[in-house]
Amino acid sequence: MDVEALAEAVAGGDRRALSRAITLVESSRADHRDGAARLLDRLAPRTGGALRLGLTGTPGVGKSTFVEALGLHLTGQGRRVAVMAVDPSSTRTGGSILGDKTRMERLAREPGAFVRPSPSQATLGGVARRTREVLALCEAAGFDVAIVETVGVGQSETAVAGLTDVFALLLAPAGGDELQGVKRGIMEAADLVLVNKADGDLAAQARRTAADYAGALRLLRRGAEDLEGFPKARTLSALEGRGVAEAWEEIAALHADRRDSGALAARRAAQAEAAFDAELRALILERLAADAGTAARAEALRRAVGQGARAPAAAAREALDASAAGV
Amino acid sequence: MDVEALAEAVAGGDRRALSRAITLVESSRADHRDGAARLLDRLAPRTGGALRLGLTGTPGVGKSTFVEALGLHLTGQGRRVAVMAVDPSSTRTGGSILGDKTRMERLAREPGAFVRPSPSQATLGGVARRTREVLALCEAAGFDVAIVETVGVGQSETAVAGLTDVFALLLAPAGGDELQGVKRGIMEAADLVLVNKADGDLAAQARRTAADYAGALRLLRRGAEDLEGFPKARTLSALEGRGVAEAWEEIAALHADRRDSGALAARRAAQAEAAFDAELRALILERLAADAGTAARAEALRRAVGQGARAPAAAAREALDASAAGV
Repeated sequence: MDVEALAEAVAGGDRRALSRAITLVESSRADHRDGAARLLDRLAPRTGGALRLGLTGTPGVGKSTFVEALGLHLTGQGRRVAVMAVDPSSTRTGGSILGDKTRMERLAREPGAFVRPSPSQATLGGVARRTREVLALCEAAGFDVAIVETVGVGQSETAVAGLTDVFALLLAPAGGDELQGVKRGIMEAADLVLVNKADGDLAAQARRTAADYAGALRLLRRGAEDLEGFPKARTLSALEGRGVAEAWEEIAALHADRRDSGALAARRAAQAEAAFDAELRALILERLAADAGTAARAEALRRAVGQGARAPAAAAREALDASAAGV
Repeated sequence: MDVEALAEAVAGGDRRALSRAITLVESSRADHRDGAARLLDRLAPRTGGALRLGLTGTPGVGKSTFVEALGLHLTGQGRRVAVMAVDPSSTRTGGSILGDKTRMERLAREPGAFVRPSPSQATLGGVARRTREVLALCEAAGFDVAIVETVGVGQSETAVAGLTDVFALLLAPAGGDELQGVKRGIMEAADLVLVNKADGDLAAQARRTAADYAGALRLLRRGAEDLEGFPKARTLSALEGRGVAEAWEEIAALHADRRDSGALAARRAAQAEAAFDAELRALILERLAADAGTAARAEALRRAVGQGARAPAAAAREALDASAAGV
């Protein structure tokens, strides 16, 4: 594989090269993983140029409608927008790939937009890792806004918050007692709560919901390091296109403030270092598992621990001491 | 160190030997860790005999009063009860060790009881690991009920649920809108919600709180594998000693049902295997870090990734390829 030529083509903004690079990055074949690692390493100095927006919201809140409306607003301004998803459930439901394409077909037809279906990976860790790499490729290809969305399965919002610069929670209008349905961790990570469907009969309820969340966000308010007024809650109607431009202005203002204060660089450095640590751990376990004798011995010791015949710490020592890999 | 003699003394129920063994297990000195691993491995076949009860509740709900009342009830029946805590905040607040001793002084004086102060470890992973090992020592020493409590800092309830057979949540009477303050994960893990302070003016409010939680538990009800009626909510007054014996009967009935159905053995096997996996990962990283050249190189690569000059996957490969440990 000519990784250097592919890297040049991606950096030149070639769409087909970007698609080929993404296919390479999403492959689990060992030789493809090697090529992908070299490709991403080569492109690393060209990454970091996009505003990375994380978005979560349960099914039915109008997430795709909002992302499409926001994407069209941005491409209308001449920006290049990439959309990707962290959705570990997509292999189970099977419908996400077609679903994403169908739902955002107007945005997907825009020359300045790139809508990537959810990768079909079983584990959240695998999906988050691939999404981080696809995001890096999109940045290297010159996209200046990257939107990573999730439907909030398990810990997927935490994964998305760990990949992005600004994190928004999209909600539908609801009664006050539904506030408890939002996990505390999401509320703590959210910079912006957006209450969608503020149109027709639901407009007043949307305003009440936004006010409820504004109150909850005040209780959870983080330190003084952020732009005055954040985290905040506001309403919009993705269907009617109202409030979408204003939501973007909020996101862009917070991002600019974090960039100027140095908070953005610190956040990204911490995210990248955490990704390095995760890669290191995964790689060590892969290499141990690839050594058939060690893997079989570790599995036998693991079973003995499960049966209560051995204690975890001593069994783990024995598994490694006998390892031909010599750790 | 004569690990075999110490193991024999612990298994014989010798209190001073148990204390020596716990000190060994809680030490972070490398030679102590070796001895502790051998000791625990030797005692492994003697563990598993206790009912392991996990308990969580925020400060002020009367957790120590309840644990002491429950402990005295059990020692009164001739049972041997060990109490320990998973509390990663104890190094920060500094008061937990003395606090625990003072609060449970009646129970601590009972010959059949063993009240262990919180280990002073900074990380939750470290505390959970040590607590698992102390619990194993107590089982080997013949204690037949082990109570592991936590105040619910960070993910500590998840850690406690991962060490125990039955998991209970202790609450104070409260208004309905405070229900949202309980993390969803705790509600999902709880077999039993106990509303304390059902005495005097608060009795009626305690009953309402228990009814609210009973409703919430019904919504979260797990599969049909458990004893009819669980998870459930009930009231008690630890101060007046009412409802404590009944709470214990519920716990014991659920435990017996899980033991008879095989669910208990499966849960414990999964917990032990997860502990083995965690030990294996920690040990590999320890050994890599102990190799000074590898550690320095990994740190330099980690910084380059943080600065955006290198990509995580390629940098992790380079860190390991250059390792003298030869992983």
